[in-house]
Order: sequence, then structure tokens, then C-alpha cells
Amino acid sequence: MKVYHNHRRLRSIEPPPNRYTSSPILGLRPDRILDVSKRIDALICPRWTIQVEPSCDAHDDLCLAVHDGRILELVPRAQANEKYSPDAVHERPEHVLLPGLINAHTHAAMTLLRGFADDMSLERWLNERIWPTEMRLVNPDFVADGTGLAIAEMLRGGITCFADMYLFPDTVADVAATTGIRTAVGMIALEFPTPWARTPAEYISKGLAIHDAYKGHPLVTTTFAPHAPYSVSDETLQRIRQLADELDVPVHMHVHETAQEVSDGIEKNGQRPLVRLEALGLLNPSLMAVHATQLTDEEIAVLARSGSSVVHCPRSNLKLASGACRVADLVAGGVNVALGTDGAASNNRLDLWSEMETAALLGKLIAADAEALPARTMLRMATINGARALGLEQETGSLQAGKAADAICVRLAGAAVEPVLDPISQLVYCASRENVSDVWVGGEHLLAGGELTRLDEALLLDRAHGWASKVLDA
Amino acid sequence: MKVYHNHRRLRSIEPPPNRYTSSPILGLRPDRILDVSKRIDALICPRWTIQVEPSCDAHDDLCLAVHDGRILELVPRAQANEKYSPDAVHERPEHVLLPGLINAHTHAAMTLLRGFADDMSLERWLNERIWPTEMRLVNPDFVADGTGLAIAEMLRGGITCFADMYLFPDTVADVAATTGIRTAVGMIALEFPTPWARTPAEYISKGLAIHDAYKGHPLVTTTFAPHAPYSVSDETLQRIRQLADELDVPVHMHVHETAQEVSDGIEKNGQRPLVRLEALGLLNPSLMAVHATQLTDEEIAVLARSGSSVVHCPRSNLKLASGACRVADLVAGGVNVALGTDGAASNNRLDLWSEMETAALLGKLIAADAEALPARTMLRMATINGARALGLEQETGSLQAGKAADAICVRLAGAAVEPVLDPISQLVYCASRENVSDVWVGGEHLLAGGELTRLDEALLLDRAHGWASKVLDA
Repeated sequence: MKVYHNHRRLRSIEPPPNRYTSSPILGLRPDRILDVSKRIDALICPRWTIQVEPSCDAHDDLCLAVHDGRILELVPRAQANEKYSPDAVHERPEHVLLPGLINAHTHAAMTLLRGFADDMSLERWLNERIWPTEMRLVNPDFVADGTGLAIAEMLRGGITCFADMYLFPDTVADVAATTGIRTAVGMIALEFPTPWARTPAEYISKGLAIHDAYKGHPLVTTTFAPHAPYSVSDETLQRIRQLADELDVPVHMHVHETAQEVSDGIEKNGQRPLVRLEALGLLNPSLMAVHATQLTDEEIAVLARSGSSVVHCPRSNLKLASGACRVADLVAGGVNVALGTDGAASNNRLDLWSEMETAALLGKLIAADAEALPARTMLRMATINGARALGLEQETGSLQAGKAADAICVRLAGAAVEPVLDPISQLVYCASRENVSDVWVGGEHLLAGGELTRLDEALLLDRAHGWASKVLDA
Repeated sequence: MKVYHNHRRLRSIEPPPNRYTSSPILGLRPDRILDVSKRIDALICPRWTIQVEPSCDAHDDLCLAVHDGRILELVPRAQANEKYSPDAVHERPEHVLLPGLINAHTHAAMTLLRGFADDMSLERWLNERIWPTEMRLVNPDFVADGTGLAIAEMLRGGITCFADMYLFPDTVADVAATTGIRTAVGMIALEFPTPWARTPAEYISKGLAIHDAYKGHPLVTTTFAPHAPYSVSDETLQRIRQLADELDVPVHMHVHETAQEVSDGIEKNGQRPLVRLEALGLLNPSLMAVHATQLTDEEIAVLARSGSSVVHCPRSNLKLASGACRVADLVAGGVNVALGTDGAASNNRLDLWSEMETAALLGKLIAADAEALPARTMLRMATINGARALGLEQETGSLQAGKAADAICVRLAGAAVEPVLDPISQLVYCASRENVSDVWVGGEHLLAGGELTRLDEALLLDRAHGWASKVLDA
């Protein structure tokens, strides 16, 4: 990284009279000290900053220095002006700066089925509406258009990284890569044929081809995504376990979504699905157990001991009446809990603000304790915990030096969100995705003052309208 | 109402050739028929219209004709052009038009305490934070500034009517009247002294003075607002019951908010609070029982038989871990259920979109039935049911001829809310208050294309900042 002189700044700043005597050990003349300010790509200057890690507090008057897509440091505003010569300064005087949110479970392309099958039981929802429509319509074009729309929605709402599970994950990867968002693409596996693959072996080989194609990509990673215990055989799960170990890739799976799933599992296999997964060696730090609305105390202890993550999707669990995850107990037990939106057909928002809020509110009721799951815990779930679940905690999830510059600004101004007595409470219990003004992923400014910089939203919407006619023409 | 000729329209429309023969009984020449189009104040032309009553469906291509603050009719767009000559035409081609939302329970001025005491138990919240701060700060200025801010927030979110319960209700009435929103001001009563009154008799007499001052006001009505069974004596409740009968005014009261309240009531009075209220004659169509998280089957039956309303405040109940109202059972039992936000210190939004969504999602979980409480039911709760609870069902709550023109437009456009496969699902499960573009109350355009027309939001925020310093200086 080169260091440039900042000639503009030199003209406007006089060295303080005692500068020389106060730093004699440097052996430099005062004008030389001020002379050396480092050119960087950008300085983001919000009113409040929440790093999330090492601490999840709101600090005033810090600036984020960004260069080559990375976080250099958080620096007090006064020092920033002296130390850096940024190409771009983003003044955000009414805003909170925090890490980008991580949506740890979605089916992005299902935005095209948003609102298509509401107020139905999970069984009717799947069998009468979702699966027949998917079999009829889902192809690479559907996935490209739906995923593009989902990425526009997620970026607008401050999501900088999402873990997907859907058919045609090659298309998901290709679309995501062109948008600049960070993605963990799910190498989906099922025991039955779909338009994407016919056999478990074909699902796995097509998945591995994506993994190979994107190896070393700065934004696209992969997960194995065996759909659920009831839809994937022991043999397939063992093969995935082996590959996941070899490739060091997370295993992203629906687990214990409903009571029915658990009782069916007992009937079929003589054991609860989580017990079966444990026997198959899947309970370990690479597991992302999505939903987990049915957990015994023992299962919580096992998840904690094994280092598995749970991905909590409260809005989907409520809307499908699947049950309520024991989030406060999981947190107390030391399990890493991340948040996911699930797909737009069962939510209907890809909106982590709404998930944070719902997780906190529902979690308090389920724990019968208003002090459970405070706002800070929610911010961690939506950021660093998601990164941990995806094995990306060295890369994203907090505002720390060396990590990718995945950051967002949220504007806390206006009658709906003022006064701001506590910025963290305000973010979780009051702000909406509509308050997100700016999004950077790997230092690239993908949402700038409310405008998407890379995506053509009008085109995406036009395509969505075309698909809507086909969906409704069933 | 005068009928004017619409000269502009006459120039552009030729009578169809067979017009005379097709309507011979009118005895008029065709040019005379077309000649007569009625001048009206406004025509609102959305993409979809939801009347709520008589039916809660989304209709295409209807326009709302408004004159003298009242709804004339909903008319197909083609006929509207022929029949009316509006002073203003509001084209809203991407929008849903529906009745204004009714917030059936709030403490508006508590916006100034938003986020001040989060993640605390109800007991600590009240005793350590809210009550000491209120005793220190609440005066008519606090109430005026907090209520003004709350009204700005509510109007922006499509709320056209709110039922308030707070100290200094005279100030609430005065502020609300100047803003143009519809208000049911709570004549609060407590057994203990506050900055507003010292004795039950003083609470009641000061309340009645407000009732008298606003008698016949087009927008301001009153409710009796005895705070809760545990904070108001039998004697006071009996007096209120008598006055409510005489004046035909609703009784707005916290009832069975927590399990603790019920067990304390049993300990003190030997009976559950609702049983006590029934014995005092308070269970009848004028009762608005707020919260009601603790209900037996028998209590649901009694509420239904008596014609009482329940005001459900799901977000507050969750945040304070108070419990979950059995909403699906109340609806099945025939109880009128309205929605309320509660105050901003326990929510933290005055946002009925969020309440509708939470009520639907939570209600499904509590009923263990994803088909319970569908989106249509939520729209009714947030509109006509609120009007019914307040005794205002002849005046507001649906888009029907003769009612006040209390209406809102919600824009369903953009990546977050498209495609629109079902406008009603989209409103309840996907749209946010930020999608509200226009609000009319009694025909007055109070939010026009996202801009408040009467309120000075910057001034309100400035005052809120002043109060924030005082709140935090505790």
C-alpha cells in the first residue's frame, strides 16, 4: 500500500506550536509528521458505530477506514483527519454504522412465489401449492430472476451475505457473483429427482462442480445443503459428511422444523432425527441446523457440546405454525445461534430487521422472561453468529481490522425512530429495513444513499411481473 | 350539494349513437345526460381497493369519490370519469386504497420514553424506570410534545384514529384536534395521585370537562379510561360505569395483562379481575378490554356474550413477556378484537402494520394452526373492529358511502414488496409503514405523497431532543 502526501490537507492545517517538543523521539520536523497521511479508498463517518466484536456497544465519533476492500481500523474522528487522506469520505451524521447483516438461511429464488400460498398449513402449502408450482416453473431463468430480485431486496435491507438452499445453485452462484453480495451457495441434495438433478450422486457431483468453479472467489463460498433428515438417506448423508470434512465446508440443513418431522422420524427410524444425525457424525462445528423448533434439554446440550450452530427463522416458524425455537435456552447453553429469513414464500420478507425483532419478542415470551434475549444479543445473531455458522468469522460479521469491509449505515432520523435514547434498542425494536441507507460489501458501495449501484431494479421487477403471470396461471 | 356542468369533459366526449333510444324513459336528450357531472372535492384512483366492509377483498379499477369530508361512493373508474368532476384527482397506480388504520390502545406521549427501558421485566420497567421518570417529567408540555411526535409517527404509518390513555388528556385532545387526526381521548382514572389529579373524583371531573368541551367535535371523542382493575377501586368503577351508560362512552381499560395481575386479584378480592368487572356491570358492548393475555374458555364466552371488545397488543405483550392473547379463540367465539400498539416505551413502534403481522404470526403459533387468523382477518382488526370498539363504526373503519373519508394509500412497488400475487397478503405479511404514501382523515389530505401537510416534523423532533436530554439526565 503506497503512502501519498495529502497536499490539500497540508494547506489547511498548521502544526501546533508545541508539536516538535512533544514528540522528540520521532526525530522528524513537525511539517514532515503532518505531511505523511495515508491515502485510502474511503472513510465512513457515522454518528454511532457498533463493532459487534470485540464489544457490542454504540460508540460516538469513530470513523471506519477502508482500503482495498478491507477494514484498516476504527479511528476517532479527530485522528482520522490527521492520519488518512481518503479518496471518498462518507459523512453519515444521523446514522449507525454496523457490520452487514448475514442471512444464514434462505431460498432466494422463492421471491417469485411471495404471497402465493399464505395462511396454509405446511403440508398443504408444500403439497398443494409450492411443490407443484416449482415442478412446473423452476428452471435456470426462474432461479436467476428470483435470486436477482432477492439480492436487490436483501441489499436494500442491509444484508451483505446470505446462505442459500435451492435448485440450480450454479445459477445462484453466477447471479450472486455479478451482484457483488457475499454468498454461501448451497450444494443441495435430495433423495428424489427435481429439475436440477435426478439422483443423490448427481446432486453431489453437480454441487462439487460449483465448489470447484468458485474456489478462491472472494465473495462466493459453498455449503453442503442436504435438504432435511426426512428427504436424504443415511448413505447420502454419510457421503456428504465425508466430503464436508475433506473440503472444510459447512453442512446447511433443515432440522426439526416441526413436531411432525420428529414423530415421523421416530416412526421411520426408531429415533429422533437429531439423534440419527449425531450417529451419522453430522453434529460438529460445521453443522447449520435450520429451524430446530423441537429440542429437548439433552439435544440442546448435545448441540452445544458438538459446536453446531442453529439457524433460527422465527417468522417462518410462526407463519407455518411450526413451533418456537428455545432460543434463550440455546444461548444460555452456549450454542451459536444465527438468524435466517427462510424463503419469501413462507415469510414473506427477506428482512433480518424483522427477524431480529421477532426473535427477541418471541424469545422473551417463550422464555417467560422480558430480560431474555436483549437487543445486543440480536445484533450478534444477525452478524457475527451468522459468520461463525458459515465459517466466515475471519472474513466478515464484525467491524475489525483486517476483515472485509462488509458494513452498513442505518439512518435513525424522523418521527418513527426518534428520540434515540439507546441506539441499539432503536435498531432492534424500532428501525426497519427502510432505514438502511448504505451497504458496502468488500468495500464496494452497493447501496449508496438508498440507491442500488450495480443492480437494475426496474429490469428485475419487470422480469418478476412476467413470472407472476405464469405463477397465477396455474 | 350543488351539481355543476363539467364543460371540459363535454368537449371531449361524444354521446354514443344509440344513447337516446337506449334510455327513453329519462325523457332527456343524450347531451343533457352527459352534461350533468357532479363537482366533488376529490377522486382517489388506486390500482386496488379494499373496502373491508361489506367485503374484505381487493378490487381493481375502483375510484373513491370524496366530498365534504365524506365518502360518496366507490365507483368503477370508467363511470367515475363520466359521473364526477373532481377538484382533485389522486392517481395512485401502484397503490392499495384502504380504510385508515385504528390504533385502539396507546399512550401517545410515551414516544419521549422510546427505548428508555428495554429488555426489562414489567415490574422493573414500571418501578425502576417508567414511573419515576414520569413523576419527574410529565407535565402538559411533555404530553403536548410527545403526543405531537406520536401523531406524526402514526399518520406516517397510516393510522387515522387512535385511542389514548395518559395523563393530561386535555392536552392530548387539544394537540390531536390541531393535527387533524381522529382521536378517542381517555378520561383516565386512578386511585392514587399523579401530576394530573389527586383523587378519583378529581380524575373523573377533569375528564368530564374534556368530554363537555369536545362534545360534537368532528374528530375528538372520549372514552372513560380507568387504568386497570388493580389500580381503580370498586367505587370508582361503579361511578364510571354509571357515567359511561349516561353519556354512551366506551370504557377503555387494561385487563388481565399478566398472570401476576390475575393472581394478585384473586388474592386481594377472592376472584379473577374479569369476574370482578362482570359483577360491577362493566362487561358490556362499551368495554375495551386491553391485553387480555390470561383468558379461560369461560371468560372468552362471557366476553362474547356481553359484546365486549378485546384490544390485542401483541408486540407489547411479547416484549414485556406478559403472555399471549388467545386471539384465534376470541375470533372463533365471536368477540370483537381490535389492535393496539400500546405506548412506545413498551413496543417501541406505534405501527399497526407490525401489530397486524405479529398478531397473525403469533396467533398461528398459539392456535397451532397456520390457517388461523388469515391476512383478511388482520385487516378487519386494524380497521372496522377498532371502530366498533370505539363506538365509531358508523363514522369510520371501512370505505362505505356516508362514512367519513378516512382512507390511506399503500404503495406496493419495489424489490421488497413485489411481485404482488395477492395484495392482501402483501399488505399484512410484507408491506411496512414506510409503504404508506397518503393519508386522509375526514377528507383532509394529512399525508400527501409521503409529506405531512399539517405537522412541522422538524419542530417536533427538535422538542423531542430537548426532552431526551432530560430523560437521560435522571
